Amino acid sequence: MPRNAFYAQSGGVTAVINASAAGVIETARKHRKHIGKVYAGRNGIIGALTEDLIDTSKESPAAIRQLRETPGGAFGSARYKLKSIEKNRREYERLVEVFKAHDIGYFFLNGGNDSADTCLKVSQLAEKTGYPLTAVHVPKTVDNDLPITDCCPGFGSVAKYVATSMLEAGFDVESMAKTSTKVFIMEVMGRHAGWITAAMGLAQSKPGTAPHILLFPEIPFDEEAFLAAVKRNVDQYGYCAVGVSEGLHDKDGKFLAESGLKDAFGHSQLGGVAPMLANLVQSKLKLKQHWAVADYLQRAARHIASKADLEQSYAVGRAAVELAVKGMNSVMPTIVRTSSKPYRWKIGVAKLSDVANVERKMPRDFITADGFHITQKCRNYLQPLIAGEAYPPFENGLPKYVRLKNVPVRKKTEQKTKEK
Amino acid sequence: MPRNAFYAQSGGVTAVINASAAGVIETARKHRKHIGKVYAGRNGIIGALTEDLIDTSKESPAAIRQLRETPGGAFGSARYKLKSIEKNRREYERLVEVFKAHDIGYFFLNGGNDSADTCLKVSQLAEKTGYPLTAVHVPKTVDNDLPITDCCPGFGSVAKYVATSMLEAGFDVESMAKTSTKVFIMEVMGRHAGWITAAMGLAQSKPGTAPHILLFPEIPFDEEAFLAAVKRNVDQYGYCAVGVSEGLHDKDGKFLAESGLKDAFGHSQLGGVAPMLANLVQSKLKLKQHWAVADYLQRAARHIASKADLEQSYAVGRAAVELAVKGMNSVMPTIVRTSSKPYRWKIGVAKLSDVANVERKMPRDFITADGFHITQKCRNYLQPLIAGEAYPPFENGLPKYVRLKNVPVRKKTEQKTKEK
Repeated sequence: MPRNAFYAQSGGVTAVINASAAGVIETARKHRKHIGKVYAGRNGIIGALTEDLIDTSKESPAAIRQLRETPGGAFGSARYKLKSIEKNRREYERLVEVFKAHDIGYFFLNGGNDSADTCLKVSQLAEKTGYPLTAVHVPKTVDNDLPITDCCPGFGSVAKYVATSMLEAGFDVESMAKTSTKVFIMEVMGRHAGWITAAMGLAQSKPGTAPHILLFPEIPFDEEAFLAAVKRNVDQYGYCAVGVSEGLHDKDGKFLAESGLKDAFGHSQLGGVAPMLANLVQSKLKLKQHWAVADYLQRAARHIASKADLEQSYAVGRAAVELAVKGMNSVMPTIVRTSSKPYRWKIGVAKLSDVANVERKMPRDFITADGFHITQKCRNYLQPLIAGEAYPPFENGLPKYVRLKNVPVRKKTEQKTKEK
Repeated sequence: MPRNAFYAQSGGVTAVINASAAGVIETARKHRKHIGKVYAGRNGIIGALTEDLIDTSKESPAAIRQLRETPGGAFGSARYKLKSIEKNRREYERLVEVFKAHDIGYFFLNGGNDSADTCLKVSQLAEKTGYPLTAVHVPKTVDNDLPITDCCPGFGSVAKYVATSMLEAGFDVESMAKTSTKVFIMEVMGRHAGWITAAMGLAQSKPGTAPHILLFPEIPFDEEAFLAAVKRNVDQYGYCAVGVSEGLHDKDGKFLAESGLKDAFGHSQLGGVAPMLANLVQSKLKLKQHWAVADYLQRAARHIASKADLEQSYAVGRAAVELAVKGMNSVMPTIVRTSSKPYRWKIGVAKLSDVANVERKMPRDFITADGFHITQKCRNYLQPLIAGEAYPPFENGLPKYVRLKNVPVRKKTEQKTKEK
């Protein structure tokens, strides 16, 4: 007898997480012998705890197909990490209660590091509570910091966005530098790992073009060396474009974005390492500067998604279902690179216990000796991940993104856990 | 006998100003009877003053064609405004000296408000100095604030970029709002006119979706009303996306971005009304916020240029040459809208004396009564301007933009004016 599946989006969303959702749902629809309906959690795993389930069978094949073209999380995502069973047994009992009420036999969590840990804990339900469940993690994170997999679905698209943006802004600044801005600083995501910052480096096609300097969270900020490098580039090329990670910190591990700035009320200013550095450049070097903070624009930019990334995002969704129906519990499909030139990849499998809570930072040999740029080795790794365009359809000048009906499943349990 | 032409890019560059350059150069090449060579000023009009001319005849037809697909200013632009002939006769004498040495009979300046004024002054050279010259202004400004013309080449592309970005970020924030960011603030350009801010409004397809609030430079900032509107939207829809102009100011005309913030050295923080507002939301409403400042990304985003804008940018370049060879001096080609649905436009002509130094702000009836959004009338105006996609070619995952050879013309005069 087929059992139902539960699918939830988890953590920060991406331009292509919905492609993974499409991969899960469309593949499940092909495995009617094993999988009945796919219920999605409204706002991620919180939807499971509150029994707020969405019946994806109410969505047309066309709507599910359009998920490939739509950024954000179509069912709502959540930042919510389960504690261990020992520490919060009640939460797991509630999960089992809801799963049992809706005959959930398959659990798919679509997320990054924290989510992999949550998925691992859910995968232990069968063993620890006797409730039979197959849990598979669907990898997704713009941070590209999951271990084992060659890259993380979601990263390639943000990489393509930031590299394109840096390339374009570089053309702008270069053409104005004679009488206007000399230093441009662009801040991107990546609190602990510099992958997104590194991707900006792909924009540099020859020495002297943007970006001239990259500042990684892996390399403690050295103010003197930074200012000297900025000055050197402005002297030599007339301008200097800097890409910086939001997670840039000093040698004591203190985030730059958290230090110093106070608002009119005396509160520390929130975020913004780019304006911080711009101010430094202005006050120490007396050079005109501009800065950009892409923030959510970068991870929502479906209009400039990477085709490779989109295909991989779909593929891990499909593979997760295929693994689950084979009875593989507590695993995660991975991307295995079989060749860089030409780029070839296939799907592999990792044990969740090897994935959860492991953070993959940039290898030191992906960063140049001076700490300010990427090496050729890094380029070889990154380049294929941004390859190919996959434009969404447009209507009246804007991308045409889908909003699902998100029909709720009738509740069957008495609500025991309050909404988080 | 044909005479040579001088072309210069002026002021802030755009995603499509090079399309106007292509329009000028390709059209001049078709008018060999009137126009010899097109010399471009390196770094705008400064290139004329320093006799730093670029011989565009050294560029292949393919390279000139690629200008349509390349953002920034291919010859370098400059922020440089000529004083009146009465106030700085030496500068005009220098211009005439350089023009005479290179037999420049046609002058094309590609810029916005300030540039139109400079072009007007140059157009008076013949009358005031006896040097025969035909000067035509080629309109360009992301600010969309030139009078007479229905819209300004360069605006449609930045409008498409900011509307797309707001749409995408809105999908992101909406899907995370349950447990994460409730208020998202995106800052765009427009120091005095709110056209770009208004364009973000196109992203809202139905009430309750992003953007919920727009803050225009035309409407003095009312902190209490703003915070109440944010709270109302968060209460009703679960989140609130705000689009704000960098030029937002209070009722005394003071820019918000200039007030309050101090860095660690006690300097006023530079720019950033978005972080300012985000801080306000955080401290007064205790709501989690995120903010983005697109800065140069918005005006360099050739990858998401508007097809309508691209075509108009090319058309004004072509028209400028056609007007010049007809002997029309001191004019500017304009965009005349003949129909909104379906969108139809043609080229018109304006006298530079009617254009220079006139700034067109948003009409009050383009903004809703509460001051926080755009009206249907505004939508009807804006919508056609972002219509159509015009993707650049891509190579290895990134847009393939052209860098010209920019071969200098041999100098013929003794350098009298020092480089500015």
